[in-house]
Amino acid sequence: MKLLRVGTAGAERPALLDRAGILRDLSGVVTRLDAALLAADPALDKVRRAAADPDGLPPLDPAGLRTGPPLAGVGKIVCIGLNYHDHARETGAAIPKEPILFLKAPDTVVGPHDTVLIPPGSTRTDWEAELGVVIGRTARHLRTAEEGLAHVAGYTIAHDVSEREYQIERGGTWDKGKNCETFSPLGPWLVTADEIPDPQALTVRLSVNGVLRQDGTTADQIFPVGEAVAYISRFMTLYPGDIVSTGTPAGVAMGHPDPKPYLRPGDVVEVEIGGLGRQRQVMAAAEEVVGEGVA
Amino acid sequence: MKLLRVGTAGAERPALLDRAGILRDLSGVVTRLDAALLAADPALDKVRRAAADPDGLPPLDPAGLRTGPPLAGVGKIVCIGLNYHDHARETGAAIPKEPILFLKAPDTVVGPHDTVLIPPGSTRTDWEAELGVVIGRTARHLRTAEEGLAHVAGYTIAHDVSEREYQIERGGTWDKGKNCETFSPLGPWLVTADEIPDPQALTVRLSVNGVLRQDGTTADQIFPVGEAVAYISRFMTLYPGDIVSTGTPAGVAMGHPDPKPYLRPGDVVEVEIGGLGRQRQVMAAAEEVVGEGVA
Repeated sequence: MKLLRVGTAGAERPALLDRAGILRDLSGVVTRLDAALLAADPALDKVRRAAADPDGLPPLDPAGLRTGPPLAGVGKIVCIGLNYHDHARETGAAIPKEPILFLKAPDTVVGPHDTVLIPPGSTRTDWEAELGVVIGRTARHLRTAEEGLAHVAGYTIAHDVSEREYQIERGGTWDKGKNCETFSPLGPWLVTADEIPDPQALTVRLSVNGVLRQDGTTADQIFPVGEAVAYISRFMTLYPGDIVSTGTPAGVAMGHPDPKPYLRPGDVVEVEIGGLGRQRQVMAAAEEVVGEGVA
Repeated sequence: MKLLRVGTAGAERPALLDRAGILRDLSGVVTRLDAALLAADPALDKVRRAAADPDGLPPLDPAGLRTGPPLAGVGKIVCIGLNYHDHARETGAAIPKEPILFLKAPDTVVGPHDTVLIPPGSTRTDWEAELGVVIGRTARHLRTAEEGLAHVAGYTIAHDVSEREYQIERGGTWDKGKNCETFSPLGPWLVTADEIPDPQALTVRLSVNGVLRQDGTTADQIFPVGEAVAYISRFMTLYPGDIVSTGTPAGVAMGHPDPKPYLRPGDVVEVEIGGLGRQRQVMAAAEEVVGEGVA
């Protein structure tokens, strides 16, 4: 299933993109697409039954309808750094022996097409197209990649917007450059795991102003999804609604020769992952739209 | 006011510790002590009026009553690393030029007297007594320490339990050693800012099995509260219900000569901050009580 949430920020309704590509209203079936739904088999089964007979669901006119993040009440966002061989090479970093983890706060999440704010004074705001893994079952101390995959509810696109000066040159951990407001566009869809038989065979592409900047595949991941989920669960408990953002392939602005093409107000970023749809964000200076656009 | 939440995990009720030290039921005045309450002056005023005439509130028998975290729905937890001169010295680190930031997920929060779980196989679980700052107003791009303090709703004790091997020796950022389940005991009280005229004059003490291990004062903080809040707000937006954990003074296990006294199951940790009450946790091996004790 392709599940999504449509409507103004904070007042989204649950929706289904059916197999024919028709947007359907799910608000008669479930009130919220949230962690509780992912964790409760009966509720999710009700959605599955409705999705199997989509003609029973009222169609929605997508014209002018905003898409929100695909999950209400996102939990913690655990990110893996340097998880693609080609990206590790472009940054000059050694291949990590075990996953590098850092956190993004869920208050940085916005819809897939919402405005992304460049912080005041920032000159190194960068992009990172990532496969986002949505956790469906509480995961503690898992041992195997198979166990890791068994705790995945589905997948979505996670854009890990990053400010490189804050991340690297201002002291402390990477978190400082990863948690600016609007820095986590998520969606458009939560695609249930049954529709993604192999999460290590997905294309990951990102373009800026129509110029293709990232063109990778999850086959290049150093720590594949199941292994990464199991690894994380040995350091922190993963709960339904948590997101694991699995790293980005080569092609970020930081990896370019000078002058590096960092993002500027007005730039248009498009992110596409095979089977997971597409995001499109317009960059704006934070001063212009403080307080808007936040899920 | 000293506000707290009492009852079993997930079903706490709001309460007041009145000036005479009597525990009072606030559930007839407000349904929840949460970020929305902090952010809404009329709701908070209602609590203030009730607290001014505590005899109108039903007393609660504290015997056998669990204390939960003092806030429901804690937002992000932004921690400052190496924020005391004496702690920076004991770790051999240079005095930071600007605050070191890292994140703890709110799902690590437990009540002030709940069991703390030592992760399976961990040998370096350590303590960190910290002054926790509860944000009361949305803070973006603040310029001055005065503006920082104006966005503080109150204070509480934040125990930043840390696994040093995970934090330092397993690659990546500190987050890996800071987010184990139950690693953020919080409370007992949310003490409103009006009762703490100078947050830089608080004693911070921690003992393990009755042996005093940390005996510091917030006067030794490198970046005082107002400055720290303003600084953080220039990298990430702070929202009502977010916590800033302001670092720990000297005396952690990591700073001791070998053999370092890392925590073991059965150890009893007590944390006390002037005016903010006291925490007491018993350590247990995670395997024994998985799934319990989590707020």
